This record gives sequence, structure tokens and C-alpha cells, in this order.
Amino acid sequence: MRMYDLIKKKRDGGVLTDEEIKFFVDGFVKGEIPDYQVAALLMAIYFEKLNSDETLALTLAIRDSGDTLDLSDIKGIKVDKHSTGGVGDKTTLVIAPILAACGLKVAKMSGRGLGHTGGTIDKLEAIKGFKTNISREQFIKVVNEVGVAVVGQSGDLTPADKKIYALRDVTATVDDISLIVSSIMGKKLATDSDCLLLDVKVGSGAFMKSYADAEKLARVMVAIGNAAGKKTAAMITDMDSPLGNAVGNSIEVVEAINTLKGEGPRDLDALCRALSVQLLKMSGMVFVEAEEKVNDAISNGKALMKLKEMVSAQGGDASFIDDVSLFPSAKYSLDVLSDREGEFYGIDAEQVGLASITLGAGRVKKEDSIDHAAGIYFHKKNGKINVGERICTLYSDNQSSLSAAESIIKNAIRYSGEDRPLIWKVIE
Amino acid sequence: MRMYDLIKKKRDGGVLTDEEIKFFVDGFVKGEIPDYQVAALLMAIYFEKLNSDETLALTLAIRDSGDTLDLSDIKGIKVDKHSTGGVGDKTTLVIAPILAACGLKVAKMSGRGLGHTGGTIDKLEAIKGFKTNISREQFIKVVNEVGVAVVGQSGDLTPADKKIYALRDVTATVDDISLIVSSIMGKKLATDSDCLLLDVKVGSGAFMKSYADAEKLARVMVAIGNAAGKKTAAMITDMDSPLGNAVGNSIEVVEAINTLKGEGPRDLDALCRALSVQLLKMSGMVFVEAEEKVNDAISNGKALMKLKEMVSAQGGDASFIDDVSLFPSAKYSLDVLSDREGEFYGIDAEQVGLASITLGAGRVKKEDSIDHAAGIYFHKKNGKINVGERICTLYSDNQSSLSAAESIIKNAIRYSGEDRPLIWKVIE
Repeated sequence: MRMYDLIKKKRDGGVLTDEEIKFFVDGFVKGEIPDYQVAALLMAIYFEKLNSDETLALTLAIRDSGDTLDLSDIKGIKVDKHSTGGVGDKTTLVIAPILAACGLKVAKMSGRGLGHTGGTIDKLEAIKGFKTNISREQFIKVVNEVGVAVVGQSGDLTPADKKIYALRDVTATVDDISLIVSSIMGKKLATDSDCLLLDVKVGSGAFMKSYADAEKLARVMVAIGNAAGKKTAAMITDMDSPLGNAVGNSIEVVEAINTLKGEGPRDLDALCRALSVQLLKMSGMVFVEAEEKVNDAISNGKALMKLKEMVSAQGGDASFIDDVSLFPSAKYSLDVLSDREGEFYGIDAEQVGLASITLGAGRVKKEDSIDHAAGIYFHKKNGKINVGERICTLYSDNQSSLSAAESIIKNAIRYSGEDRPLIWKVIE
Repeated sequence: MRMYDLIKKKRDGGVLTDEEIKFFVDGFVKGEIPDYQVAALLMAIYFEKLNSDETLALTLAIRDSGDTLDLSDIKGIKVDKHSTGGVGDKTTLVIAPILAACGLKVAKMSGRGLGHTGGTIDKLEAIKGFKTNISREQFIKVVNEVGVAVVGQSGDLTPADKKIYALRDVTATVDDISLIVSSIMGKKLATDSDCLLLDVKVGSGAFMKSYADAEKLARVMVAIGNAAGKKTAAMITDMDSPLGNAVGNSIEVVEAINTLKGEGPRDLDALCRALSVQLLKMSGMVFVEAEEKVNDAISNGKALMKLKEMVSAQGGDASFIDDVSLFPSAKYSLDVLSDREGEFYGIDAEQVGLASITLGAGRVKKEDSIDHAAGIYFHKKNGKINVGERICTLYSDNQSSLSAAESIIKNAIRYSGEDRPLIWKVIE
């Protein structure tokens, strides 16, 4: 088999076999196939596309390219959720404890924030002492005892994805649906949970700006997940404005705690309940029972208790959950006031993400450090607004960043538009 | 300027500016732009094409990427001819002396054979002592004194072409017309001749198999040459069967000598006269005068004399020209006889080229050495043929290669087909 022939075949619109796809992925990881040949193939794929069989083969080749996370020592039904990334998206912090309280097992690997989107690992590290790099043995022990644990990626999981993604990133071949799907699903399939719910975001703050693109991505991912033997569903949910009122790290953990107490903002609360119910249904429960279980877990405090137990088990200071004033606060803050009167149709989520980087809450490059106390709290996301009314408060340890972030926020406000649904579609 | 943006622009069907094209060519030559990004751009170009402005910019960037051959010390009108490569194509050996005899200056840089096509430099080296690597000063002196000299490529001419071609070769991006044109014309424009005639071959032994592709290539090359300020024309000529009767090295030089005596095979003779007349016309002569001059140069022996003078001036043994029995002969030979009776419609030129490699006359890889005495002589290329009639004679120093070459040749004979013109079209 020669890489040249694979490039030419795809260039001419041919269909690559499973063996051919495995050959190029394995050869690239081993350093036997040079990056310039893979770059040419990726561009040919961008133009000629991969069909569903090829996408599945690529996904599996990526999954199998390194270590896999063996969760067979965990008792019970293991569920996983993946968000395609958004602004203010702290759902993992809410639904993982809810699902544990409902008797499911959540062994979650999460990422860090990059660009305008945040990451669960960064948020959890706002809690004093919380460790996201515990050993595999301890991870499994916490999940078995508490029902939930959240860690960062460790081991040599899907090295093919790392190499291929790095190349796509510099060759303008990131935005191809098959390549996106194989990257996301290759990683998700390397963890052996029983059910996987994909939260596919759509809107200005999402990777997919249009509903049509988001639905296409969701359908392909669900098909690939099920074809690979994992029960997979997707919810397409709105990310045109930030989710909830808080954007940052500490500030988002606090909002998650409030939501677990039943006191969260309406959109975040509704989405977390819906995602939780969906995963309970996927694990075999009927809708009515699932909904009751989720509501109970919140109202009787069991879900919040699970978060506390997990924080303790992972070395964190659980008193932060009871007393959120313990979270470090920012040195400086600034209220952003409305310049005009009118109807308020949300706020561009991508711009909010950029404002949050400006304040120190996010990263431009992987190596950047972040300020856990920095962030944005929205007092208003829609409805009638008057001149001088407070839209949000900005927090930062860097005073000069406040006015820069203020001007980004002011330009991001939408004074016209239309109402968008919170949940666009469920694909099962 | 970032290479990423150039890739994305071309991928999305955009038009690259002159500055952008120069940026990527220069950056690649300097090693500042990595090959994987150039590979991705080449594949994007394969799909989205270059328009005529972009093709010209790429051609000029390649031309200007290294040294250029300054011929300003040569007096008179300097003409150049380039063949896109064929089997049995010894026209340079014939027309260069003819043109010198007609008063033009021919300072020719030629290549070696690779794959199924031969190269002028290899052929000339069949003459004892002939040097193709003389200094620039000596090259110009020979052209000024004799009117003609033929050397191999020297100096750091068009390093961008070498690097880009090497990458195209392994990324399945060779067969794009703009990339082909910029590669050929970048090199031809690096030599400052006044007129350039392109011999664009079409048929089984040519790079362009179909007439439509050949015409497209010819038209783009002529447009680019003229746009770059060099008087350029093209002849589209047949390469479905080998040109002339001889294929090899020594054997082709002998056929060229015979043609300069007016005793060459009809197709080769006609093509060499037509190419010579075309170049005289381009240098300012009217057709009737040009035709008369060419015929005279052959009939009065001046053209053959020019070949002898050039051979002497470049260190070769000119007695080879007077007595062709001095050329080394092969140890073994084999007559290939027809198995059947019928109408003979030529012979697949590409297969003949491969048979000639088998006999030792050509190269598969650049590093391979060649046997100057090996080759094929055709006694018949078309017309009625009987069982047992001799088609050709094979020559080699390697006896076992004869039967392998025989079977290639037998399979390459066409017993049906249609007559093809020798000269398909002239594009001025």
C-alpha cells in the first residue's frame, strides 16, 4: 500500500477502504508517513468528502491509535456527555452530580478552555485543592464510591487525533464535517461508557453557526457513535447568547452550585434538567420517571451533596460549596450600562467569550495561564431595557482590561432579532 | 502575510495576488514555509485552479527563485525549443544545427531521460568525449563561434521548481495544468532567448494523452510566455507512436545524422523541417524564405557541418559523425517478427519507451545509469504486415532483457485504429 495512491484515489473522488484509512492513520502516528502527504490527503478529503463508512473507519482508527480508558471496573451504567463547546457552558458541573444522585455512574474526562470557549477542568480548579490529574485507580475508586468524578485527559489517548488536528489547524482543513466528527468521536469512543449524549451547540458562540450545519454534525456523530456500538444521542442547543448569567471560572462554579439548589438562571436550569432526563432515558428509564428523579435530586439536595462528595474525594475544599464567598474575588469590577432604550435580543456569545479572555478568564494559546476570579455576570440577557440600566458586571485583576472588555460587550448587544429556542432538536 | 490565509483563500475559490504567490514560493525555497502547508496549497490549487494572472505570477516567481542564464553576450537572434517529452524524440539534434546553419543562435539547455521518455543530454553523450557540463563562458563562446551548443542544466536555476515538483510528485498534484505550465515555463524563462517554440506532444507516449488536454496546455504556455515578454509559439505534434524509427541513444544520434543528410525517416524529417521553419518565421523571416533556407541547409550539408563543429567544440570525437560505425554496438540483438497478418496502425509509444528502459537505454530513477548502445530500431511502423515480417530489431548488452522487451513490443502493436496527423496544430 502506498500513501501516494490513497491521495490520488481520494483526489479523484474514490472511496478509501477501512484498511487504507488505518494504514494512513497508523503510518502517520508512527512517523512513517510524512506530514506533507497527510496534508495533501486532508485537503483532498476537504474537497471530495468522506462517506459514512470512511468516517466510521477514520473514527475507529483514531480511537485505536493509542491507549483507551478502561472503565470495566466501574459498577453500574456509565454515562458520558460531550459539549461541542460554548460560552458560559457549565452544564457538566450540574448534570454530573444530578446523574450520580439518580444512580448512574459519571466517569468524565474534560478539557481546558481555549479561544472563546471555556473548559470544565479550569472551572473546577477554582475550588481550592481540587485535583484533576488523579491516577486511573483513584478515578475509578471515586466513581464507584461517589458516583461521579471529573478529570483531565491523561495517558496517550488518541495520539492520531492530536497529530491530525495539529496539521489541520495549519493547513485550513479544520472545518470539514467528517474530520470534525472523527476527531470528536474518536476521543469519546476511547472511553468505554455505555451511553453518550452530545450537546451540539448552535449560534454565534458555537463552532456551528447555522442550525443546518449543527444538525448535520449531530446526525453524523450520532450515526457514528451507534455504528461503533455506543448508545449515542444528541441535543442541538442554543449558543447564540451565553448559557446562564455567569461567564468565567469561579463565577460559573457558583452558578452551577445555585442551579443544583434549584436557584439557577432559567435557561441553564432547563437545559441541565433536559440533558439529565435524556441520559436517564438512554440508560433505560421512561420519561416521566426520569423527570421525577431529576427534579427530586435537585429538590432534596442529593445532587448538591454529590458535588460536595466529589470535591472532597478529589482533594478539594468542600466548604467552598457551602460558602461560595470563599472563592477568590477579583480586585476590580465595572458595571456595563445600556446606552439606549429598546428591546434586548441577547448578546453575541462569541464576543462575550473574547471579552472574557480580555479580562483574564480564558486563553488564546494553550500555554496561557488564567485568572479564576475574572469573568462576567449578566443581570439582563433579554427583554425591555432602559438607558442606564445595568447589563452586566465585569471582574478582573487587571484594571485596564475592564474598559476594553466593556467596549466588546457593548458592541455585542443585539437590539433587534428574534427569539430562539433553547433546545432546537433531539436526535436519538 | 500568513501561509494559512493563502491556503484558506485558495481553498475557498479565491484569487491569490502576485505578492501572495511570491511570498509562498520564496518562503518555501528559503525553508520558512513548511512542506505540509505547501502540499495543502497545491491540493487546493488542484481543485480550485489558478487563473491566468496567478499562473503568470507563479511562473515568474519560479523563474526568479534562483540564478538565471544570461545570454546577452551572444550576438544575434537566440532561439529555443522545448519538447514536453516523447519517445524517439531526437528533434533537438536535428533542428539545432539546421537553425545555426540558417544564421540563428541556439544556446540550448537540455535534460536527461527519465521514465519512458529520453533526453538529449544522454543521447549526445553517446559520442566519445562529448562534454555537456562545460562552463558558462565556454558555452557562450561555442554558441558565438559555431552558432549552437547543447549543455545540461547547471547552476542554481529555478530551485523553486525543483522543490515544488518534488512535492507534487509525492502528493498526487502533478497533473494540474497551471502547475505544469509554471514548472515548464519558469525554467524556460530563466534562459533569456528571444524566441521559444514549444513542441507539445500528444498521444500514448506523451504527458498529454488527449488532443484537448494538449491544446489547452499549449495555449496556456504560449499565453504565459508572451505575457512574460518572450515571443512564444507552440506546435502540437503526434506522439502516439515513437518519432522516427530509432529509440535509444547512439541509435537516435545516428538517425539524427541521417536526417541532417536528408535521409531520415519521413515523420522525423517532416517534423524537423516544420519546427525549423516555424522558428525562422518567429525570428522574422517570411514562410517561403524560411522553408528555402531550411531545405538548403540540409541539401548543401551546412547543417550536418554545424553538428560536427559543435561536437568538436564541446570536446567530442567528430569522426563519429562521418563514420557512424564508431558508435559502440550492443552485444546482443533480436528481431521481433509479426505473429499475424493485417493492417498495422503504429505502436504504443509509452510501451516502446518502457521496452527501451528494459533493454537498458533509459532510467526508472534519476540515479540509474544507461547503456548508450541499447535501443530499438523499427523496420515498420504502419501499413500492411504479414506473418513473420520483421517489425523491429532490439539491441542490448543484457541478453535476458531481449525477450522481456519483445513481449512488451508485441503487446504494444496496434492492429486497428485510425491515421493521426503528424502536426495537429500550430498556436502562435
